[in-house]
Amino acid sequence: MAGALVSREGDTIRLVRQATPRDSAAAVVTAIGALIQDLLDSKQDPASEVPIGIGLPAQIDFGAQKIMFCTNLPLGETDVAGELSERFKLPLVIDNDANLAALAETRFGAAAACGDVVCITLGTGIGGGLILDGNVYRGSVGAGGEIGHMIIDASGPDCACGGKGCFETLAAGPALVRRAKAAVRDHPESHLAGLAGGDPEAVQGEMITEAAKAGDPEAARLLSDIGRIVGIAVTSLVNLLNPEIVVIGGGMIDAEEFILEPARQVVAERAMEGAKRGLRIVAATLGNNAGYLGAAALAFEHLGEGGG
Amino acid sequence: MAGALVSREGDTIRLVRQATPRDSAAAVVTAIGALIQDLLDSKQDPASEVPIGIGLPAQIDFGAQKIMFCTNLPLGETDVAGELSERFKLPLVIDNDANLAALAETRFGAAAACGDVVCITLGTGIGGGLILDGNVYRGSVGAGGEIGHMIIDASGPDCACGGKGCFETLAAGPALVRRAKAAVRDHPESHLAGLAGGDPEAVQGEMITEAAKAGDPEAARLLSDIGRIVGIAVTSLVNLLNPEIVVIGGGMIDAEEFILEPARQVVAERAMEGAKRGLRIVAATLGNNAGYLGAAALAFEHLGEGGG
Repeated sequence: MAGALVSREGDTIRLVRQATPRDSAAAVVTAIGALIQDLLDSKQDPASEVPIGIGLPAQIDFGAQKIMFCTNLPLGETDVAGELSERFKLPLVIDNDANLAALAETRFGAAAACGDVVCITLGTGIGGGLILDGNVYRGSVGAGGEIGHMIIDASGPDCACGGKGCFETLAAGPALVRRAKAAVRDHPESHLAGLAGGDPEAVQGEMITEAAKAGDPEAARLLSDIGRIVGIAVTSLVNLLNPEIVVIGGGMIDAEEFILEPARQVVAERAMEGAKRGLRIVAATLGNNAGYLGAAALAFEHLGEGGG
Repeated sequence: MAGALVSREGDTIRLVRQATPRDSAAAVVTAIGALIQDLLDSKQDPASEVPIGIGLPAQIDFGAQKIMFCTNLPLGETDVAGELSERFKLPLVIDNDANLAALAETRFGAAAACGDVVCITLGTGIGGGLILDGNVYRGSVGAGGEIGHMIIDASGPDCACGGKGCFETLAAGPALVRRAKAAVRDHPESHLAGLAGGDPEAVQGEMITEAAKAGDPEAARLLSDIGRIVGIAVTSLVNLLNPEIVVIGGGMIDAEEFILEPARQVVAERAMEGAKRGLRIVAATLGNNAGYLGAAALAFEHLGEGGG
């Protein structure tokens, strides 16, 4: 987890990163609380009131400030917002971390000053966040923005979500690595095969990017295939939402020079004339700072203006 | 075209329907102007000021109140809003007709009192409108809401929009009729074949609905296939936007008993748990009155409150 003291302008004054406990809800809440206390103690003026924003990898009922689902942390029905605002007696808001990353890119990053923004996170899964008419769009129960689970091949492979042919199951890390393993088997002389020590099962996502950057044509092709699938999903999003910018982040965007251009080409070919005019498709600029920066932006905007 | 005098509550006081001239922009604007004059003359209190809302089958830059594209009428770059507000000296607003139909269903129809609404129009094409956080969502240049051009089968057939495998090309009227022609060839003894006088080329959309209602199992299957494709598109929309209701209208919804249930089943199977909880998928209730009712709703909301 990361916690930071952030100025209204998005400058990071103090940043702490630490491992997230995963054994119990109480341990998670205690760890978040200790991190907040650390940051509050480090303020220049300890008496000043600051709003607190917290991003969680969970589906959140934003109006009620409650967690609905949390798959990767044992937070279940824990009242994180209630417990921590009770403890700190400060204005506090929780939101989904992908929403906050999108907000951060819109306030401080690649989409600064844009009103309608689609953010896509390409990694082990595909997440996303929507900024529509200038604000985070959450949907009726806070479950919106699941860009990875738009269906782009109705008869495609099963997806972990229970669907079939979702964007995620075709273009996220596991799909890329699966194809890379086959490529290593077919091209044992390739740079990628060398990075994997000749063992297809040892291939990891970063190796594919590294091999492509070193000039391995097969690795570059694997990544541009991902870019084209991204372009198909972006075409749907552009026709539906007509954003002014699409921001692509996540671990896979380290390979941006192989992914973005094929995605742009597909959108140029397939998206509708009016919707694609003026559209930009760019890499995220805030990396893994987007989560805490978005939490800060939300705290300032939603809770009023304080110090950090 | 239709024009109506409508109360704030959505009651139609006077409705006029007439053929739309298609020969020139001037003829269209003259016809709209004459219709407005007719309605203004029919008001109980001729001196009262009323706001005017106009829906056009065009992509509109809402902020600038200008037409960007218009495929079915020769309006091109015509300044419809400017010319008519100059003439009538009344507050006047133009918007895309699909957006207005969605607004009407949300204010007065199937989605009354809902905040996040997806409207889909199934007909010769597939159109749509999005009401997000209570308001019409138009996108950055007014080109949003093209639900028919979400890609649901990336390697599917060519679409008129220049894409491939769009929802529209798989599920709109022409796709249904094409399959129905094949069915008539294969089942010359069927009720549908009888309605078409035994000539596959004579099949029309309404005959398929009529045959299905008369118990023709093949016609019913053709419509439920459409329902399943609708379900796939709705699954994407639900995962992305988490609406509380999806309203399905257009000519094809006359066959709602064959289309809606298969669509609901696909969404129940394939959409994400959080996003589909509480979701309703229903038929539109305003039919072809939705356009003018939405124009009235927009006029009252956007331009203040007057009489009609």
